[in-house]
Amino acid sequence: MSTRILVDGHGGDHAPGVVIEALSKIIHQSSSKVTLGVVGVADILIPELEKWNIKGHVMLVEASDIVAMCDAPANALRRKRNSSMHVGAKCVRDGQWDAFVSAGNTGALMAISKLVLKTLPGVDRPAFASMIPSATGGTFFLDIGANVDSTAEHLFQFAVMGSCYLQVAEGIQSPRIGLLNIGSEDIKGTDVIKEAAERLRGSSLNFIGNVEGTNLFDGSVDVVVCDGFIGNVSLKTMEGVAKLIIQTLKKELTSSPVAKMGALLSKSALGRVRDAMNPSEHNGAPLLGLNGIVVKSHGSADAHAFTCAIDVARREVESNLLGTITESMATIHQSS
Amino acid sequence: MSTRILVDGHGGDHAPGVVIEALSKIIHQSSSKVTLGVVGVADILIPELEKWNIKGHVMLVEASDIVAMCDAPANALRRKRNSSMHVGAKCVRDGQWDAFVSAGNTGALMAISKLVLKTLPGVDRPAFASMIPSATGGTFFLDIGANVDSTAEHLFQFAVMGSCYLQVAEGIQSPRIGLLNIGSEDIKGTDVIKEAAERLRGSSLNFIGNVEGTNLFDGSVDVVVCDGFIGNVSLKTMEGVAKLIIQTLKKELTSSPVAKMGALLSKSALGRVRDAMNPSEHNGAPLLGLNGIVVKSHGSADAHAFTCAIDVARREVESNLLGTITESMATIHQSS
Repeated sequence: MSTRILVDGHGGDHAPGVVIEALSKIIHQSSSKVTLGVVGVADILIPELEKWNIKGHVMLVEASDIVAMCDAPANALRRKRNSSMHVGAKCVRDGQWDAFVSAGNTGALMAISKLVLKTLPGVDRPAFASMIPSATGGTFFLDIGANVDSTAEHLFQFAVMGSCYLQVAEGIQSPRIGLLNIGSEDIKGTDVIKEAAERLRGSSLNFIGNVEGTNLFDGSVDVVVCDGFIGNVSLKTMEGVAKLIIQTLKKELTSSPVAKMGALLSKSALGRVRDAMNPSEHNGAPLLGLNGIVVKSHGSADAHAFTCAIDVARREVESNLLGTITESMATIHQSS
Repeated sequence: MSTRILVDGHGGDHAPGVVIEALSKIIHQSSSKVTLGVVGVADILIPELEKWNIKGHVMLVEASDIVAMCDAPANALRRKRNSSMHVGAKCVRDGQWDAFVSAGNTGALMAISKLVLKTLPGVDRPAFASMIPSATGGTFFLDIGANVDSTAEHLFQFAVMGSCYLQVAEGIQSPRIGLLNIGSEDIKGTDVIKEAAERLRGSSLNFIGNVEGTNLFDGSVDVVVCDGFIGNVSLKTMEGVAKLIIQTLKKELTSSPVAKMGALLSKSALGRVRDAMNPSEHNGAPLLGLNGIVVKSHGSADAHAFTCAIDVARREVESNLLGTITESMATIHQSS
């Protein structure tokens, strides 16, 4: 049976257009073996499916409500029980679909997924993760915003989940785990960090010690673990810096005729730099630790980026990530 | 009387060469009205002063010991009482010099300065601050690593100090203060952040609310306040991303003859981008809240960057920053 992936027809800055366009792209790849569905308001989604000529290829799951980007998570959870997000999560819980992908309201997606799917045995809190660009390809970074005030035990569990993800979804044998800190020495950081380091050192994980913000990008570590407040600030710092550099480049490269000519000649090289830094190439943030597969797409994702998020979900399903995390958590709890 | 600035002859990656070269640069600017001194081991510093022909223009303050970059702060504090750092801080405490600038071990500089100088009335903890590049020039960012586990009161005090700094040292009338958070809504973040926001909203500061990592660079805010763990991670994320982008640019711009030609023509534009992102242009991290002026230079600073750090110290002295912070803290404590 092919992998069944349900996408949220609403949410994100360009829904449903971009979402349906992404489905169309996948359907037209002859190599694709996934079964695709979209959940949401029929009156809005059917015309889009017709426009892209894929009505017969995508299953429509109806939902009557939409979580707005500005909805408070608690409200979305309580007052919109028939939202596309809620119905999507339930479809995964009930085994009708293998994974759910949404570009909608992040807080609401996390709250709803947690309520509907619950966490895997041994996992206290789910975490958001993202692959960020590095000198050697990418660094898997979590938690990027699902939790604040994480304890040492939470950080430890994030490390286990991150390690499992890279092993099964990316085929890295023994991922190098680093703990994000303000210095590499053991004496650095908060008590929570020191306790988490202690716990990681005593485990069978390939823990390489404390890492700093610079190490996120230098290829020296595969998984970087931190509290969600810190991960979110770091990720948004990254986005902000990249944007500023690209703006400055654009301004400088149009500042004189010679610079303009240079820019013209180096256009494709500059384009490749922009792509390498583009979060859309790394789109698809897994919500790890849930008893079901949910992937968050960036709200501003274009159709190509949205297909990347769908591909993250597909790999999670096909590599049996949930089984691997459950097994690892059990082994670790037995040995501690 | 001209402003008297004492620099640490040791510490940093290129001391004492770069430090003495920086002094020489300032001395040869005819507009310069500062009195300069260097503290450290005479046998090491005199040959350098002679090499740069400035022995007669720089006062030498002798110290017999050197804090190494790898010294634990507590050890540097207790076992190296006659280090250049310790003697430098004492010279400021005793009023012989107006400010001290060091490129040495950050943790040791903070610990020693705190012990020797103490904090200003009303300040619980000193903070490290840095001007980081933004779309409109710069954002003043603190704390970037002096404190972990800051309370709401600490964050509030950082905001007061940051506001004072921009008012007097940069001439910004009513600096816009933002609190670094994981979303702009009031419900976001930890309890500490929520309490700090409450406190800031009730104050006379120009508090614009929560800001995110992206806002550090978009010119929408003048002062961004956070705990030192978060500030340090964010700052190092910024350094890491900028380095990765510049590496990628270099690689792509030498990838083909056409790209190389383009790079050649746009060389000066690309150079200006690199300069804009270069921390050395913004070198000089004030240690705010101490009862004395201490400025930290980046350890890898070149001579030009080191002169920037000296200039930060000069502006702090000449604008009476310490008096302004003391006054603001008193006003705020009276009104709360």
